[in-house]
Amino acid sequence: MTRIILLSDGYDMSPFEAPLLAAASNVTIVDSDSPVADVAVCWRPPTGSLRRLRGLKLIHSIAAGVDHILSDPDLPAVPICRVVDPAHAQGMTEFVTWGVLHFHRQIDTVLANQRRQVWSRPLQVAAVDRTIGVMGLGTLGACVAEELQRMGFSVKGWSRLKKNIPGIACFDSSELDGFLSGVDILVCLLPLTEVTHGILNEETIALLPRGAKLIHVGRGEHLVSADFLRALRDGQLGAAIVDVFEKEPLLPGDAYWTTPNLVVTPHMASVASFEKISRQIADNIERLNHGKKLVNLIDRDQGY
Amino acid sequence: MTRIILLSDGYDMSPFEAPLLAAASNVTIVDSDSPVADVAVCWRPPTGSLRRLRGLKLIHSIAAGVDHILSDPDLPAVPICRVVDPAHAQGMTEFVTWGVLHFHRQIDTVLANQRRQVWSRPLQVAAVDRTIGVMGLGTLGACVAEELQRMGFSVKGWSRLKKNIPGIACFDSSELDGFLSGVDILVCLLPLTEVTHGILNEETIALLPRGAKLIHVGRGEHLVSADFLRALRDGQLGAAIVDVFEKEPLLPGDAYWTTPNLVVTPHMASVASFEKISRQIADNIERLNHGKKLVNLIDRDQGY
Repeated sequence: MTRIILLSDGYDMSPFEAPLLAAASNVTIVDSDSPVADVAVCWRPPTGSLRRLRGLKLIHSIAAGVDHILSDPDLPAVPICRVVDPAHAQGMTEFVTWGVLHFHRQIDTVLANQRRQVWSRPLQVAAVDRTIGVMGLGTLGACVAEELQRMGFSVKGWSRLKKNIPGIACFDSSELDGFLSGVDILVCLLPLTEVTHGILNEETIALLPRGAKLIHVGRGEHLVSADFLRALRDGQLGAAIVDVFEKEPLLPGDAYWTTPNLVVTPHMASVASFEKISRQIADNIERLNHGKKLVNLIDRDQGY
Repeated sequence: MTRIILLSDGYDMSPFEAPLLAAASNVTIVDSDSPVADVAVCWRPPTGSLRRLRGLKLIHSIAAGVDHILSDPDLPAVPICRVVDPAHAQGMTEFVTWGVLHFHRQIDTVLANQRRQVWSRPLQVAAVDRTIGVMGLGTLGACVAEELQRMGFSVKGWSRLKKNIPGIACFDSSELDGFLSGVDILVCLLPLTEVTHGILNEETIALLPRGAKLIHVGRGEHLVSADFLRALRDGQLGAAIVDVFEKEPLLPGDAYWTTPNLVVTPHMASVASFEKISRQIADNIERLNHGKKLVNLIDRDQGY
């Protein structure tokens, strides 16, 4: 019998119980304060909660990101896996496509005009004349970049190691200046690592053309909040859609809610179903128990 | 020398002058009150303005629609052409895709939540579980339907004569009930004809599931305003994006601006560039002068 523990600091994990029991055979779910477990299924697990577990053989994120696990300084040396779901990529692609079209067709201006009862057609710009910069070209980022390119936009991509994606101008980590130059709409889809922590800051934002727009669907920690809010206020950033925050949920009274030209969305860009996530985790438990190769195993040194 | 007259009741046609002169050889643009012209380039020409023209050989719409010309009861018997521009289809596809994603991902609810400083993740629905109904499967409608189908939505289409588009459930004019049934998001891209005038009314709206959304990018006259606003108020329609109106521009004080759950956009879904429109018109003038077959000639009986 494989003992599964569900660990999270604040997020309700109970909706995973039934789908996990349905998807995996011969498993049981132990209490979240159990001292023993074979598999920990996590979203932002409390610091130290993994180290204390006896018998732990696998840590599984319920999402594509694992930064919320790796941030624990006292992490036991067991394999860590993440969930990579095509529906994940589809949800993310839908959300980013919505955001890009929202800015491309100046819907923000049009909605503001409606409130003022002003009829004013925005200037039309062809998609090919809009440059979209996608930071992060992993499973999700590559899918988003390809979709935007197919819709007719001019797309640049940035990743640690240079990728080769047909139709996308690809840049590597040493070429951040060249990548950001001329980007009208910047999309951040990076994994959170030591290198990418705080990567969206005053200096990098200043490399964008004045009035550029940002769609941030990576992690809250990529964005240096004070720099970002200042850039929005002084017009270096024309507008932004931000879906991820250092502390979630965003509480009432937070400055983000009321900052002009900022759309706040509740970490909704991509959420796979409990069932689909559970099936992937169950598959890895099966593989673990039969000594097979784990799927979507992460590289601790790279951080993703 | 071909004499071109620019005719519109209210719309500024002067931006067409330079591109038309640049695109066509051996043409001149005459005053809008000239009694003589070979070619009339029109957007909502004043009633009777075409009949009085001596020497008229061609009427050219600056857009995909010609209803604004055919509505003149005293129309001279010369060929009428419209503009069909791939950029037109691209602009329309972008706009409708934006609108569908806006409703599919419940961005309207999320924006309202931001104003109330409420963090609440909307329920996720897979694209395949959303049924989009596209009314009108001409150049623009077919392009929009195919794009939505490619993005993973379930798409139904409705047109006068049944079309055959792979992956789209197609219905003809006798099957309106079957088409509207189960449609979550209805997109109206019909041409305006005697048959389609007022087609979006209390009776047809009642055939949609309660809470369905509407994206109206056809013509203002398709929509019976009183029925539509009542359906929005009583919840039969959950929300709408309306881009076209019987009288444009919409004036300050119009009820449309302030109706809850209604996004008003300024007839912006698809606008081709003055240059591209002018090149198509110039090409038809060339064809006219050399006795060649006109491009995008409309069928007066069908109205498009």
